Amino acid sequence: METHIRYSRQDRTLILLDQRVLPTVEEDFYCNDVADTIYALQTMVVRGAPAIGVTAAYGCCLAAYEAGHPAPHAQWQKELDTLLEKLAQARPTAVNLRWAVERMRSVWKSMGDPDLNTLIARWLDEAEAIHEEDKSINRAIGRHGATLIQDNDCIMTHCNAGALATAGYGTALGVVRGAVDAGRTGITVIANETRPFLQGARLTAYELHKDGIPVTVACDNACGLLMQRGMVQKVVVGADRIAANGDAANKIGTYSVALLAREHGIPFYVAAPLSTIDRATPSGKQIPIEERPAEEVTHVGETRITPEGVPVYNYAFDVTPAHLIAGIVTEQGVLRPPYTASIARAFAAADKDRS
Amino acid sequence: METHIRYSRQDRTLILLDQRVLPTVEEDFYCNDVADTIYALQTMVVRGAPAIGVTAAYGCCLAAYEAGHPAPHAQWQKELDTLLEKLAQARPTAVNLRWAVERMRSVWKSMGDPDLNTLIARWLDEAEAIHEEDKSINRAIGRHGATLIQDNDCIMTHCNAGALATAGYGTALGVVRGAVDAGRTGITVIANETRPFLQGARLTAYELHKDGIPVTVACDNACGLLMQRGMVQKVVVGADRIAANGDAANKIGTYSVALLAREHGIPFYVAAPLSTIDRATPSGKQIPIEERPAEEVTHVGETRITPEGVPVYNYAFDVTPAHLIAGIVTEQGVLRPPYTASIARAFAAADKDRS
Repeated sequence: METHIRYSRQDRTLILLDQRVLPTVEEDFYCNDVADTIYALQTMVVRGAPAIGVTAAYGCCLAAYEAGHPAPHAQWQKELDTLLEKLAQARPTAVNLRWAVERMRSVWKSMGDPDLNTLIARWLDEAEAIHEEDKSINRAIGRHGATLIQDNDCIMTHCNAGALATAGYGTALGVVRGAVDAGRTGITVIANETRPFLQGARLTAYELHKDGIPVTVACDNACGLLMQRGMVQKVVVGADRIAANGDAANKIGTYSVALLAREHGIPFYVAAPLSTIDRATPSGKQIPIEERPAEEVTHVGETRITPEGVPVYNYAFDVTPAHLIAGIVTEQGVLRPPYTASIARAFAAADKDRS
Repeated sequence: METHIRYSRQDRTLILLDQRVLPTVEEDFYCNDVADTIYALQTMVVRGAPAIGVTAAYGCCLAAYEAGHPAPHAQWQKELDTLLEKLAQARPTAVNLRWAVERMRSVWKSMGDPDLNTLIARWLDEAEAIHEEDKSINRAIGRHGATLIQDNDCIMTHCNAGALATAGYGTALGVVRGAVDAGRTGITVIANETRPFLQGARLTAYELHKDGIPVTVACDNACGLLMQRGMVQKVVVGADRIAANGDAANKIGTYSVALLAREHGIPFYVAAPLSTIDRATPSGKQIPIEERPAEEVTHVGETRITPEGVPVYNYAFDVTPAHLIAGIVTEQGVLRPPYTASIARAFAAADKDRS
């Protein structure tokens, strides 16, 4: 599951496991240029904030090749800038997309005025570094998160914040895997199916089942009943963007789960790398919420489920206010409220680690 | 929409609009005996507590014919009793099923020791009376409910408590129709799609769209966001069984909607006839919750959405505690907390009306 994003230097191709057709079909999708990459991001061939970041980093490399094809344009820098901006705007909510593009751009700036081939060589290394870093970040999230989990906990999760949403191991599912790897016994997972795109039913169930971690799928509607019956001990979810105050945007429906968790005294945790925390966004109010195509709601596979002519809402994310979040599990440890302070401390610690 | 349940005396057949295939296919399902009727109830050819009651009443007539086929059995009374009990046990949660069977049974008892043909003639009249009564009860619910609705209200509803869930007009959608019929302007509806059986996306959207009442479908996951954005002014839902203390069992996910409504200061109403209130059930804790086949969760149409080998939960209902309910709209008016007292008063008033 750590190979769902692959880059072939030889073929200059980004190869993605197509998450649109899982779990029934395992098929790759090939990106040869920026348009392919944007298509893959927008149609959710690949999704999940950290995986979007890794994909975007490789997408920058494809952009550089494109700016140099068939021969470097006189103004390839300008063309490349345009392509990077298009890539960064492919989807609005997950901050890791722009984060990755800006990181690649700052590498470029740090090189002064490189020729295109020098830039490409450096960027390929940087994209691979981002890819590898994300794996180790998720392992660290798993180690820190494991301290929150007890034997026999049933952990509810929403959407897929697993290996498939990252470079591997996962954020929310990284916490689950971290608990199992730390020797906790009797760990089980309830995967909310997560309409409309069904990331829980399709992806979370798929990867946990492959790993032999017991998982049961429930309709999103069942959360309340399962909590009423005492069947859930912890909730752990990922995030697409966390504001400076700890408000967390995640897959639509996460907010309901958080509210139910509070009502039932169940700790609700968000697991995410620091790259998902956007200190430039003061609170959840400023996080843009993507609206996606109606067809994701009106159809499942070939089956039409709504009458012709009836409009639908398809907001992809909602914001869980910080006061409902018991902790944010990052590679720098578990951040606790008040988040403005703990987030600042985590970034300071990360800066110190790097220097 | 008041003809989705029809009984043909000539053909001795109960004809149901098959709600499993709406909205894309409009097709009838024919019940010629008790087994057909139980099948229709269990597979949800027909569903919704009041519609289940009406169906069960006609099912009793089919049971009587069956007990007399090819000629009245020497012990047809015993056989009929067995058939009635099977019918009453077809589904566990909606109390209207047993309510209707017991009402038919008490008519029988009141007749002393009738011969079978006399009983059948009387029962056909009684079933038609139950059918017609339900229509006028829903109109009364609509009139009372209309007083709760203001111009330009957007009303969120969960599942389908409409014409298709009753003899016609609906309970929750009866309130919507009642508001429109009372001259309220700008009324719109958000239909939660209501996984897994998608009664909202398929049935609520279908019947409101047919009536020209503006309706938008949203995934159940979107409730929180829509309320956060101030897009919902009222929530009105139906019920499958209301306990003596006002706790209300309704379609799975209703409890989450109620909790979100409280968080956002949005009044949450339950609309149901008195026949849905079970004074023999002290609180929601005693209401049996049906578990339904896994396939309703694992598949949508022909599309499999979960991996093979992964178990699922499919509880069909949850219980909304009385303290989250702003009012229960019945044919006797809008009941307010404390419900133990207001429910008792409503039954006393209904008894007085009948005497």
